[in-house]
Amino acid sequence: MTERDVLKHAMQADDLVNAGSCMKGAPISLSWQVGFSDSADGRPKRWVPAEVPGAVQLDWARANNWPCFIVGENWREYRWMEDVFWIYRASAEFEKPGHDRRLVFSSRGIDYRFVIRAFGSALLEQEGMFTPVELDVTGKLEPGAPLEIVVFPAPKSAPSPEDRSQANRSCKPAVSYGWDFHPRLIPLGIWDETGLAVVPSFRFIRAETAYELSEGLDSAEVELRCDLSCRGRGRIKWEILGPDTKPVVSMSEAFDSQTAVLRCRLDRPLLWWPNGQGEPCLYTSRAELEGEDGGVLDRRVMRIGFRRVRLAMYPGAWEYPAPNRFPKSRTPPPITLEINGRRIFAKGSNWVNPDVFPGRVRAQTHYRPLLDLAMRANMNLIRCWGGAPVQKDSFFDLCDEMGLMVWQEFPLACNRYEGTPSYLKVLDQESRSILIRLRHRACLVMWCGGNELFNAWSGMTEQDAALRLLARNCYDLDPGRPFIMTSPLEGMGHGPYVFRNAEGREVFRCFAESACTAYTEFGCGGPASVATLRRIIPPDQIFPPRRGTSWESHHAIGAWAPNSHLLLDVIEDYFGPCRTLEELVARGQLLQAEGLKCLFEEARRQKPRASMALNWCFNEPWPAAANLSIVGWPAEPKPAYAAVAGSLRPVMASARIARFAWKEGDVFSPELWLLNDSPDPVPAGRIEATVRFGSEEIFLLAWDHPAVQPDTNLMGPVARAVLPGRDADVFHLQLRCPGHPERDSEYVLKYSREKRGKESGQRPLNM
Amino acid sequence: MTERDVLKHAMQADDLVNAGSCMKGAPISLSWQVGFSDSADGRPKRWVPAEVPGAVQLDWARANNWPCFIVGENWREYRWMEDVFWIYRASAEFEKPGHDRRLVFSSRGIDYRFVIRAFGSALLEQEGMFTPVELDVTGKLEPGAPLEIVVFPAPKSAPSPEDRSQANRSCKPAVSYGWDFHPRLIPLGIWDETGLAVVPSFRFIRAETAYELSEGLDSAEVELRCDLSCRGRGRIKWEILGPDTKPVVSMSEAFDSQTAVLRCRLDRPLLWWPNGQGEPCLYTSRAELEGEDGGVLDRRVMRIGFRRVRLAMYPGAWEYPAPNRFPKSRTPPPITLEINGRRIFAKGSNWVNPDVFPGRVRAQTHYRPLLDLAMRANMNLIRCWGGAPVQKDSFFDLCDEMGLMVWQEFPLACNRYEGTPSYLKVLDQESRSILIRLRHRACLVMWCGGNELFNAWSGMTEQDAALRLLARNCYDLDPGRPFIMTSPLEGMGHGPYVFRNAEGREVFRCFAESACTAYTEFGCGGPASVATLRRIIPPDQIFPPRRGTSWESHHAIGAWAPNSHLLLDVIEDYFGPCRTLEELVARGQLLQAEGLKCLFEEARRQKPRASMALNWCFNEPWPAAANLSIVGWPAEPKPAYAAVAGSLRPVMASARIARFAWKEGDVFSPELWLLNDSPDPVPAGRIEATVRFGSEEIFLLAWDHPAVQPDTNLMGPVARAVLPGRDADVFHLQLRCPGHPERDSEYVLKYSREKRGKESGQRPLNM
Repeated sequence: MTERDVLKHAMQADDLVNAGSCMKGAPISLSWQVGFSDSADGRPKRWVPAEVPGAVQLDWARANNWPCFIVGENWREYRWMEDVFWIYRASAEFEKPGHDRRLVFSSRGIDYRFVIRAFGSALLEQEGMFTPVELDVTGKLEPGAPLEIVVFPAPKSAPSPEDRSQANRSCKPAVSYGWDFHPRLIPLGIWDETGLAVVPSFRFIRAETAYELSEGLDSAEVELRCDLSCRGRGRIKWEILGPDTKPVVSMSEAFDSQTAVLRCRLDRPLLWWPNGQGEPCLYTSRAELEGEDGGVLDRRVMRIGFRRVRLAMYPGAWEYPAPNRFPKSRTPPPITLEINGRRIFAKGSNWVNPDVFPGRVRAQTHYRPLLDLAMRANMNLIRCWGGAPVQKDSFFDLCDEMGLMVWQEFPLACNRYEGTPSYLKVLDQESRSILIRLRHRACLVMWCGGNELFNAWSGMTEQDAALRLLARNCYDLDPGRPFIMTSPLEGMGHGPYVFRNAEGREVFRCFAESACTAYTEFGCGGPASVATLRRIIPPDQIFPPRRGTSWESHHAIGAWAPNSHLLLDVIEDYFGPCRTLEELVARGQLLQAEGLKCLFEEARRQKPRASMALNWCFNEPWPAAANLSIVGWPAEPKPAYAAVAGSLRPVMASARIARFAWKEGDVFSPELWLLNDSPDPVPAGRIEATVRFGSEEIFLLAWDHPAVQPDTNLMGPVARAVLPGRDADVFHLQLRCPGHPERDSEYVLKYSREKRGKESGQRPLNM
Repeated sequence: MTERDVLKHAMQADDLVNAGSCMKGAPISLSWQVGFSDSADGRPKRWVPAEVPGAVQLDWARANNWPCFIVGENWREYRWMEDVFWIYRASAEFEKPGHDRRLVFSSRGIDYRFVIRAFGSALLEQEGMFTPVELDVTGKLEPGAPLEIVVFPAPKSAPSPEDRSQANRSCKPAVSYGWDFHPRLIPLGIWDETGLAVVPSFRFIRAETAYELSEGLDSAEVELRCDLSCRGRGRIKWEILGPDTKPVVSMSEAFDSQTAVLRCRLDRPLLWWPNGQGEPCLYTSRAELEGEDGGVLDRRVMRIGFRRVRLAMYPGAWEYPAPNRFPKSRTPPPITLEINGRRIFAKGSNWVNPDVFPGRVRAQTHYRPLLDLAMRANMNLIRCWGGAPVQKDSFFDLCDEMGLMVWQEFPLACNRYEGTPSYLKVLDQESRSILIRLRHRACLVMWCGGNELFNAWSGMTEQDAALRLLARNCYDLDPGRPFIMTSPLEGMGHGPYVFRNAEGREVFRCFAESACTAYTEFGCGGPASVATLRRIIPPDQIFPPRRGTSWESHHAIGAWAPNSHLLLDVIEDYFGPCRTLEELVARGQLLQAEGLKCLFEEARRQKPRASMALNWCFNEPWPAAANLSIVGWPAEPKPAYAAVAGSLRPVMASARIARFAWKEGDVFSPELWLLNDSPDPVPAGRIEATVRFGSEEIFLLAWDHPAVQPDTNLMGPVARAVLPGRDADVFHLQLRCPGHPERDSEYVLKYSREKRGKESGQRPLNM
């Protein structure tokens, strides 16, 4: 273990310390139970053991030995749970705190509306799962007497329709009201770290490290901003450790007030860089509070990554609209991420909740495997979609470490969130909590109001109070970080979502005929693995997939378009009837993989006008039978994952191909490209293109390309060949880079011998 | 005089009272002098009498008997004045205020950076002309001893280039640094009401009336929010008078604090409607502060117009982008004004400063004649352009009364305003002052960050700190009023600005080939009247117009395009060489008038997608030799004014005409329309179209149109005729509405006998 690993490890163990809002102290063991009632004041008929953090649904199912909700239609059994009151209770044995100590109950998140009670009286009422609780219960809680948390039914703006629109007056993530990849299943309960502890009376409420980089990025003015639990006299010791864990700043200041600000200047800080652009260097800022006697009362640790982030215009953007054309509109808004003065092509994916129940998501079992996959797929940006809950702190810890930039949305998606006073109040509170919790994160590069709010199905605009409020809060609390109201904005694009649409338009054409500044959602469906399908779909329904079966409730049929996300008709139109489940899965996964290759690589070819390519979506909250995700639940890569990883290599050979299905006699004319989005130049080299039928290779073209500048693509020649007659269902286009096999690329294309009329008289070239 | 007129008159006399920020009391006469120096602490060599409010330049010119700056190149003599320090001084005789009185110096605006001093010590330093001053000088100023105001040189972010870019780090309106209709002449000095007064110690600091209308507009919750100069015990009497001056609310509340809020509910308030849509009903809210002895200490009066304003989507807007097209971008932002639940087609103009020197602008001499013209031209919206200063209170008084809606911009225009800390600080202060001053105005329907900021020549985006700050302040201080960051936004259009561009494209095509949601700037140049030209251009330069003469410095040549704003080449290309000044002026003014007719009427025909038509520009700050203004300085309508007034009639016959210049044998095919943007239906009727050559009328078509719904246009038939051979330079298209001459329209078009090749064989129809 290196020193850095030790430190990382320490940080994870000391997780509570790293959160802005939770305190350190001597934890008191709590044993939780939960039950339900039909009112806030009712008593449960039965108490069952509760896991905290977790979800009331999981507790109840566990106590009753229910089968797993991911199988078949079991999820439907949970429906009633969203409409009752859930009551948690816990009692603890502890010694009453001394005169300089306090008993504090704290929670990072309780989902969604709740009351905390002791001895029958309410200590706190709150709506909102993202605002942490820190409650001084000294004298209000006695040893052995229960603390109670009443969780209200899931918020609904109307009793029907039973869909996401019910979430349009709350900050409850809309996804769990039912989505095209999520069952109707609305988690409730204590979902993040929660506990009781004895802490010093005089302690940190906040110890936040912030910095401002000089324009030249060669120095940083760093501030430690401390709020204390009460006015007092003491001393704050402040230490900053470099990425090598060696101290670079060490200072100490006496104070006599309720706030303290310490300042220092750091010369030539090592910068935090996104994955593929450099090291994601992290410093550690440690603050210790010493009382008048010199004893350490409290400590806070926070990691800092020094980087500057801006949303920049792409080169040439201002040339649009054309100078001499009137009436003239505006130039589209900036969406190119500029990190440390360098424009970066953002490659990545859309992140959804990695489980139906955020309460059981853990760093080691969920975040780490998924984010490891993202990092190893050469991704550098994760869009945390507004339909899902904002992730836990450990998610951001890992993104900080891995150099994964995060685009974070507030919990608004595909709804018209009207500006009622009660909604604006909870949105104000929740957005402030999210901002304060996350604004110190190096990985966090932009805020976004929510998903697709400026489209017909949401019907919101810049004039909506909710979005004006979010803009205000972002500017007030985090003015240095970009904020956009929604995605897509003008110039940006969402979709396509199917390999081939009802009019027969393949994904191969969609981007080639577009000129977006950012492709922030796109993808095509692919089935889960055979093993997963056999696990979630009852044996009598497993093949062929049919409407009205668990294929449908698991999103393979009618989830979005009538044939999505499985696209069975498209698969069979290309390949003929599927004879087995295995064949269906292989073909569906092939289409997803090849579709995503062409989409990602076309987006890259359009750099610098295009500056982002984020497929929909990376992961999924439960095992869908078919989905646009490239990693199945919980962290099972589909073949599309490897395809995407390949298409996101920093330096690679690439081809623009007109379509997927080809016939004997067609003129096959791939356009060759060398893609480079790395910060390094690429020396001159060679790319050889061949067509392969089985083991037979047919040479197409060799391209001796010149050297390429950093972050620059090179457009190459168009190879041309008439496709020969062969007995094959597919053929491969292979691009080989002699001496650089890591840049080789391969595309699988559909082939048939049925000749095309026009070209059938031509002789194949090059053979 | 009606009661309403009496009240209006009273309000104007009591003008200071109506401003949110200035106080009432016993005024003390001040006699002002001004001089200049090369430093803030230097002493002027010479003092001259100063007019307050006014401008130092005007004072100096008056004292030295300079000829008027509007004539010839006289304006160049003022150049040095922007770079020196100007020192005002005034002394007053007064009795020292008693124990319950204070001596207060107040000013609604000092331009731009200044220090107020007494006895050599600074009482206040301020940057910003829009933040009022209220300074308690009790004990700091003695009878007979001078109060001094040192006005610093005009702010410049860089010594060169000497243009508007020098204003990009200040809130000084950019127009005076030189514009295509404004000489380089930067006003400085005390520009708004300013004085010394003895006032009660216990008085209003603020007494603001605010309301919230019910969703159904049938009741209003009204609040009087008072801040007092100190904590005290007293009583506030509150009275609301209806538009008929009869009291509708009368109440009184005791208080014992530094703030007080009184609330009432008004049922079925008479609503404020824009010009042409109903009455602009205004209520009067009077607040009186009574001391413990029952004596009236202070009084504030404020007018309220009850109306709800929203920016709405046009009907059908959400159908764009098309549902099945991917990748999909956003729907363009809303720009249709909805007043009291009714979508309103906004007709109007862009307002610039009505004088180079805002300090000499007065309600009776400037605002009233100009706004009377706007109202009588059927306008309902005035865009107060961000390049100019925010107008004085009396401007908004008149707009409130006349039903002229105001789109108010902050002082940013055509520059990249970078987010330096010092700039953001002054922008924050100035924007808050503007917001607090104007937010109670019924006429004010939207805020806008500034002019053309999202275009190449400005280079700003949504991510700029200045615009994020303005969005924040508008939401914080005035959340109920729409805010847009700039104009144009997506879907909106600026331009055209010439009758015919270098490629020969006439204004007749520009809009017909566009699909904007709002046309917020457009126009074409026209010369000033012959009398004005003879006044401002030296006799030896008067004809023909040439480069390097006062024609050029007065914007007729090279102001924007090389040939604008006079367009001499275009005029002569249509009509041949101009032989006299009179002929040139008549032809140029004809082009402007006919160009604006087609632009305004085409924008109206595109309703409801298009919802605004605002020509550039209404007025001008000095007499330009040629300009896009339709009213010359100070308030002299050009022929284009009458044309625009005609094209903005609520109900009118209109024709879409393909081009301006026609020849014998051309197929002339005007498309007939009935335009109606009134809230009333139009019964069935008839429109007769004729072509007129001199006194000869040739009948084209009679259209018996059906009844038309309120605010609805009717597309009619296309008349078709081959133009006959006549000896004429022009012909007229006449549309007559029998029984409704107020709807008749007439268009003047260019004609020549030179036959077109293709059509020359055809016989004229209809004759």
